[in-house]
Amino acid sequence: MPRITVRGLSVDQVCQMSESLVEQLAAICDCETDNFTLECNTHPSIFAGKIVPAYPFIEVAWFERGPAIRDQVAKAITDHVLALGIPEVEVAFTFYAENGYYINGISCG
Amino acid sequence: MPRITVRGLSVDQVCQMSESLVEQLAAICDCETDNFTLECNTHPSIFAGKIVPAYPFIEVAWFERGPAIRDQVAKAITDHVLALGIPEVEVAFTFYAENGYYINGISCG
Amino acid sequence: MPRITVRGLSVDQVCQMSESLVEQLAAICDCETDNFTLECNTHPSIFAGKIVPAYPFIEVAWFERGPAIRDQVAKAITDHVLALGIPEVEVAFTFYAENGYYINGISCG
Repeated sequence: MPRITVRGLSVDQVCQMSESLVEQLAAICDCETDNFTLECNTHPSIFAGKIVPAYPFIEVAWFERGPAIRDQVAKAITDHVLALGIPEVEVAFTFYAENGYYINGISCG
Repeated sequence: MPRITVRGLSVDQVCQMSESLVEQLAAICDCETDNFTLECNTHPSIFAGKIVPAYPFIEVAWFERGPAIRDQVAKAITDHVLALGIPEVEVAFTFYAENGYYINGISCG
Repeated sequence: MPRITVRGLSVDQVCQMSESLVEQLAAICDCETDNFTLECNTHPSIFAGKIVPAYPFIEVAWFERGPAIRDQVAKAITDHVLALGIPEVEVAFTFYAENGYYINGISCG
């Protein structure tokens, strides 16, 4: 955690941006790079009766860190995706409650 | 967005209902059909020690639009799934906060 | 529902723990075992430019049942994962609103 799920990018594209992106996120969040997990969602996307390329969309699931950090994280992700030559991306944040998050059985809340 | 994730249906079944469903949802939500993304979750489902068919379940992640629209969207999805000959389906809605949703780096909130 | 999504374990490992885990969860939640769905997320995990094993992480999406039940469910899941010889696991709970959950088109709220 933070848990970052990427949709609409290839595994190669996610690999390509992963190192620089995670270093930047770790600096913004003031934590270690190995706290971040990047998952590449490869499920088929369907439109008008057939499989189509998925729209670029990235979801960040984490504990709420406030709007200033969130804006910076959204910008870092967006910049990295656009730098791959992808013209558009949406980034959504969802929040875990600390008392509903358990590490080895111990609640964080 | 809205982002619709389908579980327990085959890719062919999702393709089959996709065009009519998305047209109906666009009419209910008063937006363009290309706002909707349909993702077909193909991860293995496990019960009692082995892989089994997944239970039909559809999740809609979007901005809150109130109960009247939500009821109509749930009905449209349910009707389309039942029309495939599937006897049961569950539909769940989750909500993005507008200030936690960024399009090309710009917050919607 | 409850919907349990497992990440960072192999399909074989999820199969191995599934029967005992679901029996224990059904006892804790006082419901039938067939209410539980176990999904094994097999999407690639990426770190530092390459595909790596995913960190063991389990998400439970359900209706809120309060902290006592939640603690017991977290413990049951954690115990089962650790018993596979996996040294660490995180368990996160997310909540559906009852009025945003529809069974065959009928809202639960």
